[in-house]
Amino acid sequence: MAKISDEPRTHLYSDAYLRNFSAQVFMHFGVPQADAEQAADVLAKSDLRGIDSHGVARLHTYFEMLELGRINPKPIIKVVREKASVASVDGDNGLGLVVGPKANEIAMDKAEQHGSGWVSVCNTNHFGIAGYYPLKALERDLIGWAMTNTTKLVAPLWGAERMLGTNPIAIAFPGYKEPPIVIDMATSAVAYGKIEIALRKKEPVPKGWIVDKHGRETTNPQDMIDGGAQLPLGSEREMGGHKGYGLASMVDILCCVLSGANWGPFAPPFALRQEIPARSVGKGIGHFFGAMQIDGFIDKDEFKKQIDDWIHVFRNTKPAPGTNGPLIPGDPEREAEAIRSREGIPLLKPVVDDLLDISKRTGVPFQNRRAFREKLQ
Amino acid sequence: MAKISDEPRTHLYSDAYLRNFSAQVFMHFGVPQADAEQAADVLAKSDLRGIDSHGVARLHTYFEMLELGRINPKPIIKVVREKASVASVDGDNGLGLVVGPKANEIAMDKAEQHGSGWVSVCNTNHFGIAGYYPLKALERDLIGWAMTNTTKLVAPLWGAERMLGTNPIAIAFPGYKEPPIVIDMATSAVAYGKIEIALRKKEPVPKGWIVDKHGRETTNPQDMIDGGAQLPLGSEREMGGHKGYGLASMVDILCCVLSGANWGPFAPPFALRQEIPARSVGKGIGHFFGAMQIDGFIDKDEFKKQIDDWIHVFRNTKPAPGTNGPLIPGDPEREAEAIRSREGIPLLKPVVDDLLDISKRTGVPFQNRRAFREKLQ
Repeated sequence: MAKISDEPRTHLYSDAYLRNFSAQVFMHFGVPQADAEQAADVLAKSDLRGIDSHGVARLHTYFEMLELGRINPKPIIKVVREKASVASVDGDNGLGLVVGPKANEIAMDKAEQHGSGWVSVCNTNHFGIAGYYPLKALERDLIGWAMTNTTKLVAPLWGAERMLGTNPIAIAFPGYKEPPIVIDMATSAVAYGKIEIALRKKEPVPKGWIVDKHGRETTNPQDMIDGGAQLPLGSEREMGGHKGYGLASMVDILCCVLSGANWGPFAPPFALRQEIPARSVGKGIGHFFGAMQIDGFIDKDEFKKQIDDWIHVFRNTKPAPGTNGPLIPGDPEREAEAIRSREGIPLLKPVVDDLLDISKRTGVPFQNRRAFREKLQ
Repeated sequence: MAKISDEPRTHLYSDAYLRNFSAQVFMHFGVPQADAEQAADVLAKSDLRGIDSHGVARLHTYFEMLELGRINPKPIIKVVREKASVASVDGDNGLGLVVGPKANEIAMDKAEQHGSGWVSVCNTNHFGIAGYYPLKALERDLIGWAMTNTTKLVAPLWGAERMLGTNPIAIAFPGYKEPPIVIDMATSAVAYGKIEIALRKKEPVPKGWIVDKHGRETTNPQDMIDGGAQLPLGSEREMGGHKGYGLASMVDILCCVLSGANWGPFAPPFALRQEIPARSVGKGIGHFFGAMQIDGFIDKDEFKKQIDDWIHVFRNTKPAPGTNGPLIPGDPEREAEAIRSREGIPLLKPVVDDLLDISKRTGVPFQNRRAFREKLQ
């Protein structure tokens, strides 16, 4: 769900402005225009939907990887194996923001022809928000799934070291008159960004989020940075930590073992400051996409009308004390998107500084300005 | 994972004896022999794997439903719609223990022909342990998935009433020399059986398992019984309760909205004592099965050898203090199966009493005896 930063918002930019800047930066490194625009669209969608951690705030990392030649700007993306409804894809070490959308398209094409399509991808890199991909499936009236592994951060239950990524799962279902249900969740107890925020504020984190380097529970976020690990969804055994570990393992295997990518602790790092794993067991990181044609199961409109009914029934759940009742998965992101596409995307000063640094080093212009009215303040 | 009761074990029976008894009971109600043996096999597998709550301990409930004509002993199971890799199935109100295996077979057949198969099922009933179905897929060297909705027990995050079942997800991956990885988990924080055990022992439950009828957190298991609800995996917002709610919703939609079954709070009850929902929005409860052919993605042996490597690497994770390190999903159930197939299945006295009651009312003989050496004591 939405991870809107609670820090002061200093600059507002339109998504079009940021999208164009990102695309120009990718093109500066030789990424073909269509691919650059595709990659920029994934980042912009993340910013629009309030997931600040996965939008242009990450552009500097992509920039560094491209500058050092660690990512191939002109990948030749190949289907390695396939049957009617499944395939594996080699991303040729391209941007995940380019490889992901192409592999997702293969899954969607298969779904339209054979009822469903499932694509496991190796030799790829960070693909942005998992939710982007099922949103594309919705445009074609399909149920879409996406998963990816990520650099190790999470300890398996009863482990004292990082072995798995935050390995997200996303899936979306279209409504008829209602907006879609969009589930997009890391399989860790909490997003890494929340630990970073606590660290900056010098505040403790709740019990159950992290362990220290000895595998002991701790509430000091610095302990996680100093060789500790995040805990899986459910945290402890008693609260279902084995379930979050199981889900993260499922994502790891579907994305990596099934495609021939680096699984578990061997996922290559996304950022330069992260350590490079001792072993390589495959190519790059891995993704897994799925798409299902609703009409293969049930009349499409009947399905969508039932989804509307589902949404109404769940919105009418008796609320827990001190709440307005349950949200529908995807509500916070959709609300953020409505506001931000109208009023602009707020960027923190360190993010603007990063973009200015990219601008200086690539020659792609970026203005240190308030691009929009500051309604969000 | 395994839910071996920690109460005194009073009677040991071989799985063959229990399997035969269950099959005879189903046949007593007109279930054809092959179907009766299939249904009995699902129950026996659950008992063998240590999931006592889903084995013959449930036979009395099936018995009651069949006796009252609430379940159709001779269903005509039909494919309602299909495309190459997907289908929906109407279970004709049969035993889930019969409908589930048939629908799972359709998914597996499709996987062998088209790379993957996905089947959503309506008009069915409780199907036993979700893990049974991916275990069948492993016999055909496929990756198997299974989900089902169940009678409402769980509140969505920020809700104060039962709206979703414990909606389990299971998936399994074959190893080469190592045993398979078998993930089988409810999407609630904890199994309902654990709340029942606390109730019998008059002990409090941990914070985060349940809420009372006002939606307030409580540690008194009686509060859950008195109109309260279980919490989803993750429990509170801060610990990821929205994620467990999202997963339970995903299961609900794939099993029910996609098949035309009763979703959310409208799932019909499994047991006679449970209330009948005010509305019906479809037919029976719903399941969802998936199967994927490994060779459609990657060489099968290469995949299995990587799974072995994955298992070795995860077994070698540095252990957290006070533990022996992480388990591999499926370890506890496999260990239970090894012991119980050798030494017998321990049944509690109330379960034996239930079986004796069935025996008395059906004329199918059941001996109140210790069938095996009592090695487990």
